[in-house]
Amino acid sequence: MISDDSRTPADQQAAPPAIDVPALTALLDGEYAEIRDLVRTNLAAHASVLEEAEELGVDAFRERVRELAVDLAATGQTGMGFPKEYGGGGDIGASIAAFETLAYGDLSLLVKVGVQFGLFGGAILHLGTERHHRAHLPDLITGKLMGCFAMTETGHGSNVQALGTVATYDTGTQEFVITTHGDAARKDYIGNAARHAELAVVFAQLEVDGEREGVHAFVVPIRVDGAPAPGVRIEDAGRKMGLNGVDNGRLWFDGVRVPREALLNRFADVTPEGVYQSPIENPGRRFFTMLGTLVQGRVSVGGGAINAAKVALAVATKYAVRRRQFEAASDAGGEQLLLDYGMHQRRLLPLLARTYALHFAQDVVRGQLHEVFSGNRPGGRGDDEQARRELESRAAGTKALGTWHATRTIQECREACGGAGYLSVNRFAALKADSDVFTTFEGDNHVLLQLVAKGLLTNYAHEFEDLDQLGMVRFVTGQAVEAVIEKTSVHKLFERVRDLLPGGDEWDQEAGLLDPDYQLAMVRFREEHMLASLARRLKRGVDEGRDPGAVFSHVQDHVIAVARAHVERLVLEAFVEKVRSLPDADGGARDGGAGDGNKVALRMLCDLFALSTIEADRAWFMEHGRLTVQRSKTISREINNLCRRIRPIAVDLVDAWGIPPEMLRSPDLVG
Amino acid sequence: MISDDSRTPADQQAAPPAIDVPALTALLDGEYAEIRDLVRTNLAAHASVLEEAEELGVDAFRERVRELAVDLAATGQTGMGFPKEYGGGGDIGASIAAFETLAYGDLSLLVKVGVQFGLFGGAILHLGTERHHRAHLPDLITGKLMGCFAMTETGHGSNVQALGTVATYDTGTQEFVITTHGDAARKDYIGNAARHAELAVVFAQLEVDGEREGVHAFVVPIRVDGAPAPGVRIEDAGRKMGLNGVDNGRLWFDGVRVPREALLNRFADVTPEGVYQSPIENPGRRFFTMLGTLVQGRVSVGGGAINAAKVALAVATKYAVRRRQFEAASDAGGEQLLLDYGMHQRRLLPLLARTYALHFAQDVVRGQLHEVFSGNRPGGRGDDEQARRELESRAAGTKALGTWHATRTIQECREACGGAGYLSVNRFAALKADSDVFTTFEGDNHVLLQLVAKGLLTNYAHEFEDLDQLGMVRFVTGQAVEAVIEKTSVHKLFERVRDLLPGGDEWDQEAGLLDPDYQLAMVRFREEHMLASLARRLKRGVDEGRDPGAVFSHVQDHVIAVARAHVERLVLEAFVEKVRSLPDADGGARDGGAGDGNKVALRMLCDLFALSTIEADRAWFMEHGRLTVQRSKTISREINNLCRRIRPIAVDLVDAWGIPPEMLRSPDLVG
Repeated sequence: MISDDSRTPADQQAAPPAIDVPALTALLDGEYAEIRDLVRTNLAAHASVLEEAEELGVDAFRERVRELAVDLAATGQTGMGFPKEYGGGGDIGASIAAFETLAYGDLSLLVKVGVQFGLFGGAILHLGTERHHRAHLPDLITGKLMGCFAMTETGHGSNVQALGTVATYDTGTQEFVITTHGDAARKDYIGNAARHAELAVVFAQLEVDGEREGVHAFVVPIRVDGAPAPGVRIEDAGRKMGLNGVDNGRLWFDGVRVPREALLNRFADVTPEGVYQSPIENPGRRFFTMLGTLVQGRVSVGGGAINAAKVALAVATKYAVRRRQFEAASDAGGEQLLLDYGMHQRRLLPLLARTYALHFAQDVVRGQLHEVFSGNRPGGRGDDEQARRELESRAAGTKALGTWHATRTIQECREACGGAGYLSVNRFAALKADSDVFTTFEGDNHVLLQLVAKGLLTNYAHEFEDLDQLGMVRFVTGQAVEAVIEKTSVHKLFERVRDLLPGGDEWDQEAGLLDPDYQLAMVRFREEHMLASLARRLKRGVDEGRDPGAVFSHVQDHVIAVARAHVERLVLEAFVEKVRSLPDADGGARDGGAGDGNKVALRMLCDLFALSTIEADRAWFMEHGRLTVQRSKTISREINNLCRRIRPIAVDLVDAWGIPPEMLRSPDLVG
Repeated sequence: MISDDSRTPADQQAAPPAIDVPALTALLDGEYAEIRDLVRTNLAAHASVLEEAEELGVDAFRERVRELAVDLAATGQTGMGFPKEYGGGGDIGASIAAFETLAYGDLSLLVKVGVQFGLFGGAILHLGTERHHRAHLPDLITGKLMGCFAMTETGHGSNVQALGTVATYDTGTQEFVITTHGDAARKDYIGNAARHAELAVVFAQLEVDGEREGVHAFVVPIRVDGAPAPGVRIEDAGRKMGLNGVDNGRLWFDGVRVPREALLNRFADVTPEGVYQSPIENPGRRFFTMLGTLVQGRVSVGGGAINAAKVALAVATKYAVRRRQFEAASDAGGEQLLLDYGMHQRRLLPLLARTYALHFAQDVVRGQLHEVFSGNRPGGRGDDEQARRELESRAAGTKALGTWHATRTIQECREACGGAGYLSVNRFAALKADSDVFTTFEGDNHVLLQLVAKGLLTNYAHEFEDLDQLGMVRFVTGQAVEAVIEKTSVHKLFERVRDLLPGGDEWDQEAGLLDPDYQLAMVRFREEHMLASLARRLKRGVDEGRDPGAVFSHVQDHVIAVARAHVERLVLEAFVEKVRSLPDADGGARDGGAGDGNKVALRMLCDLFALSTIEADRAWFMEHGRLTVQRSKTISREINNLCRRIRPIAVDLVDAWGIPPEMLRSPDLVG
């Protein structure tokens, strides 16, 4: 990170671009400006929830959050993803945008909304058929009917295929009998379960006529008039680090009987006579198709996390231009503001740039989700397998990077506000505690990145769906790895990258660093090289006759790194493409003099994101011959330079997110 | 981080060393085993506070914590640092060891103890004289008299010299009149102030006969029979992210009168007639001498943070050997435990090694504190300026690295326990929220590292004491920088490093990586090279006539990096020296076959710490010609190898910390 930049004083820089904040907000909000503005209005109207989260006890706060969720439902903001005929908005993209925007406020409310309308409502919508829609959608959309999503079990956090709850079909009564086998099979951490849910969508191993047919979902009443339904045991999961407005609980089922129609039967059904039927023959593929319909949860959490990071950055940035550190630090008359310090710029501005980058990456994944699900809704057109798979991978990757980014950004911003950042009134306490579990729920980030890597390795094979981790190793070492090596062999790879980098290591001019094609070539090279080398390692391990589990364990950090490199490439592509798509006012004022200030600013942010991404992994680039020592130092210097150029517009850049001022609280920091 | 290690399967490794856990605990406890065991016993006896922290409201919990602090005082554990004649234990080192051990438990209680006995009691002891000791020590040691330490002001978080509270001497009444000038001068975040303190040690600008004499400390009654004293305004700082058992508050003084004897007059006094006197002539030096006596706060917080990290690692490590992920991940019969995964080892074990390293570094700084303050106590022998300065620098550096380590480790361990880590019963919620502010209080870590760097740059000059940040730049660019460049000129530096690394870049054998002399040479080279280059940059900036504030701003990340490199060198030296000091059972069983298993294990941890420190900065080492690409990859491979070797003894290594099992809670994770 250290570079010698003392020869390029800030006062030789070009004037900062003029930012048109409302225009930038419009650009960021995109096609969902209307729903986002509705959510902003609602957030401001219910701003007191931020204080209530501090002051109310757990029970009272849970009730308050339920109340608010119902209030929001009445405005239409939480039902955007449901069909109009049942009272929804009929626009999946808008439902995600609304959820993202809600993340500017209290995150218990966000997660309550996610549980009720996303997980529970989404399962009824995507796994059920018309009978379920008619029965439940109208009431769940208004919040009159509360439900929960009972998938996770204590013993199987990330391995849904192995879960232990069983649903056995009883032909005599035409019912399913649902039972928790052993304590490891209790449903755990289930939001809405401890207090409010009347119904649960329960995932269980379906058993018909002695045959196991895999995991399926059932609608099960768990509470009648406020008391647990017969055969259902409910336990409160108790106090948590944060999100205490959400009533997480545990569920056990002891021979609970539900009618045959309780099976959410979009992808499989059981006839009254006890015959199992499914339009999807392969059980693994069936399972992943069911699970795939739930991808919107990951897209939502990723987007919510990115917006939570924005709140932290807005507070820290505004504080940094008010707070004067060491009054007499400058001879030049004025006192130095925190954000005038190079170190402080280095702490906040690359995070700001990455937040913008992730925002545009989120736009892409939200758009893909909208397309796949709008074309594919009940009554709509058929699946596009390839598009679905791409969406799932991108959703997993964006969720992982977005949530880690939130954790890191909120922490850095808290520290950058010093002791004041520790007071609850200044937002970081809640942001930090509430968002912490985002890296874990809707799929643990490490597990998600392994899914991403699996997708990369088996990109052109068709049987990937039913592979567990072990299966993945066996599989890729069997067939696909050859194809991978073929496709991305180091030899060809270098040829390809050489095409991208015509001058090779001699591209050493300053200008090149700010060339998006150079930046993209670097992150593409990294991804392909890592992928090819991972495939080689897997193959060699198994060729040597070693235990596949041990092989996988040995390369696991490599697997994660490949996936991360892949997702960062997607994020950079999204940002570069966004900038390129904007009209130039005068045909390209690269250096910020004339031209559209917003575009100039976004270009600088994109450069800062790209170069700080390369810098963070510069050891790898040097190790793999893609970066000379000299150029590596130049990149660090250029990053410092970009930070200084962005510093004067930093407040405009956080204002453009349009966070309602009430959401920032922090009267002494931003007031 | 990626390396190709698939050619060294785990089953070819040597058998793991046999750990004698009680002997390792004894080694870690060192000379303070007795007091640590007393604290452990007290922690277990009061274990219910961990639940109470969750369940009680803020008011009730504050009272509970006060009660417990008084109970602990009765056992003698909190008074170790005070002279025996007043009821203390007369052993400063033991007082720090007791504090560190208390960090295994609830951290509100820890901080309450720190405020009462460390900050308040320490100020009375070190800044006051016999009259203050006689008047206050006996009652404050028992906790009967509660007090607070009113230094920090809203407007001057880290710049004590600039604070705005004024104490004017009134010769007529022989009193000081204390006044808060402007809201920025209110005392802020003051622990014990909102509820319990009767007395405050107030830091204020002393004004005598119209002359400002700099910052001095006064004993001021702030509460009489539970109500604010006349002229004192007290405000509750309100709910915080954590540490809600500590009553932080704000204080304003409006012409509050205290007698002449209220001045803590060890280093300066005012005669009844209004003549200011001090044995230390230079005002800057006087100020830093006063502040220097408070160094024990930093030593305490650093040690507490390291032990908080141990609690998190103990829970996560024990969980990782119980939890099975993806049941069928291995063909070899057994299910894979989390800690058998390479990635999971990579996440936890380098943090485990760094925790051991910081533990031994803390031993060194605690020892230096004990020596300086035991030789220098009232009635003891005179100062050793050089030793004090070394202590202050080391305390600042260890505090910064120790507290950042805690933040990072607790976060990683929470994530490594998945959703379970989010439940309050599993400890991470409290650990994370309570320890968060450790990076800020007792000196913001970035500011502390700047102090460390300042010390390095001006090591041989004497006037450094009264330099503010700006002064530092002026100073080093004036005189000291020449000396720095002389001493560490790149030319000489390379010669020196060449002596350390006789084979230069050709030291490429595997064996060399595990040679402590190689590891030390690397981190020494880094420190000296960074320091010399920083000095050059400062000098050039000012030679070019640029504003010193801007010069400093430009190099600030470099300043921080130098300090970090310095402290990491000290930490590695402490670890290497500790291992070397241990007797070999059979004269050196390097590879873990026979010999003393504990020593073998510590050697592996030391290697892991050293190599992962180098790996984390390997880009820098490559950029500066100290690491070839090949060797860099070899280091990553060796780290993976060390992780696999340490994995079988990981639980023993966390058990050796002797954390009372009640402190881990987490019934489902470690039970």
